[in-house]
Amino acid sequence: MIIDGKKIAKDLRKNLKNEIENLKNNIKPYLVVILIGDNTASKIYVKNKEKSASEVGIKSKVIKFEVNINEKDLINKIEDLNSDTSVHGILVQLPLPKHIDERKIISKINPLKDVDGFHPVNVGNLSSGNDAMIPCTPLGCYLLLKDTIQNLSGKNVVIIGRSNINGKPMAQLLLKENCTVTVAHSKTKNIEKICQHADIIVVAVGKPKMINKDWVNKNSVVIDVGINRIEEKGFKKIVGDADFENIKNEVSAITPVPGGVGPMTIACLLKNTLKAYKNQVK
Amino acid sequence: MIIDGKKIAKDLRKNLKNEIENLKNNIKPYLVVILIGDNTASKIYVKNKEKSASEVGIKSKVIKFEVNINEKDLINKIEDLNSDTSVHGILVQLPLPKHIDERKIISKINPLKDVDGFHPVNVGNLSSGNDAMIPCTPLGCYLLLKDTIQNLSGKNVVIIGRSNINGKPMAQLLLKENCTVTVAHSKTKNIEKICQHADIIVVAVGKPKMINKDWVNKNSVVIDVGINRIEEKGFKKIVGDADFENIKNEVSAITPVPGGVGPMTIACLLKNTLKAYKNQVK
Repeated sequence: MIIDGKKIAKDLRKNLKNEIENLKNNIKPYLVVILIGDNTASKIYVKNKEKSASEVGIKSKVIKFEVNINEKDLINKIEDLNSDTSVHGILVQLPLPKHIDERKIISKINPLKDVDGFHPVNVGNLSSGNDAMIPCTPLGCYLLLKDTIQNLSGKNVVIIGRSNINGKPMAQLLLKENCTVTVAHSKTKNIEKICQHADIIVVAVGKPKMINKDWVNKNSVVIDVGINRIEEKGFKKIVGDADFENIKNEVSAITPVPGGVGPMTIACLLKNTLKAYKNQVK
Repeated sequence: MIIDGKKIAKDLRKNLKNEIENLKNNIKPYLVVILIGDNTASKIYVKNKEKSASEVGIKSKVIKFEVNINEKDLINKIEDLNSDTSVHGILVQLPLPKHIDERKIISKINPLKDVDGFHPVNVGNLSSGNDAMIPCTPLGCYLLLKDTIQNLSGKNVVIIGRSNINGKPMAQLLLKENCTVTVAHSKTKNIEKICQHADIIVVAVGKPKMINKDWVNKNSVVIDVGINRIEEKGFKKIVGDADFENIKNEVSAITPVPGGVGPMTIACLLKNTLKAYKNQVK
């Protein structure tokens, strides 16, 4: 089975739109994105976020700063947004220029408005099983899995990649669902063999087509977070960390790249913005 | 090999004592423990913490409240201690009476003074790989492992039990050491088989002698966090989650119960108090 991330994301957006239309006051959820410098990929991501927000009825604004903005000015802006009750979500588009301390900036965002879920308080609350803002990519992967498998209890999961953005929060989400969770990474020995016995593989490492037939079994569900730009037979294309074409018929279910996790990530940003709104507007 | 937690804890305390004696000012690290109600086990733990603190030169005080103290009064006391610059560490002895929201109380402690490492900011920072106060029991387990194995990179670890107090922070500590980490628990299938292939097993589930010969191999290192009071042949005794007597010669190394992880936990509380002190007294 091919897991249709596009469709699942579309349904999620539709539900969000519906819920936002039916909010019982005239205040719309409001997301502010801070974009620093001139990174082409960042600009595209932010553009897509704006467009998707608008489609579901979320108000959004992009605040742009020159690449040489100093840290203090950025922090002042975040503090203004924190105290502005009309703003429900704040997203600082990463990566930041090198002279700015990313960790420090993230820690300045009001955790209630932290729609990326990167603030230590949100990371800690997710880990401890409390209510938290959950990072968009693992939340998207989780929703794809719930759509595919429903009851995850007792499933044997291998998460490949231990990033703060995906692997670690993914582990917390799946532990909470009673999965047995293995976190593997570049230093893992016999990773192929470990994966062979997994019910679920979530991979986010940036290695084109790494997961091949030898890594999976007929019951495997593969969630592929990788987005790799490669050239093949003279054509530029985007592929995941799994060799989709060669394993799609060897596994129980798999997400394509593009069209799998990607669309879910932005939809989850909208979901988080609505959640932030509901936590703030009583 | 028997991992001598008593000796390793003694060495750690000696080093702490030495470091505290050589502090370059006349301010001693100061730990305040809040004890609520009349729980016998809690009173013993607190007594031991006081005694150990005193031995290494840490000043400590126990503030006792009646079991019916209201939440607001407790929070007020914590806030007083937060703003008292002479206090470096605050520990609220758990469990709390049922009418008090444990999560809320923990979140009121200044993270810099949170010597138990349970505040969401500390949990989040540990998860994200930032500097953090680390919960005492997993920190103790980690130090025992480092003493036994040194280079943990690439080791295959199974952590049994996913508590916020031990399993989850343990997973973060060992991921940071480049271990491949599996978190198993009551819903895990084939747990025995999963353990057979582990280089390291850390177990904290409260099931007397659960880990027997069939769970281990000749190279296994077993860290046993369990403390179970049982009756055997008419005698009351304390045993761990591993069947120590029957597997100690079947594995590479194992902690006894008592005398393994236990002594390390209190020593790590002292270590955390000194760390809190150093983070606050410049």
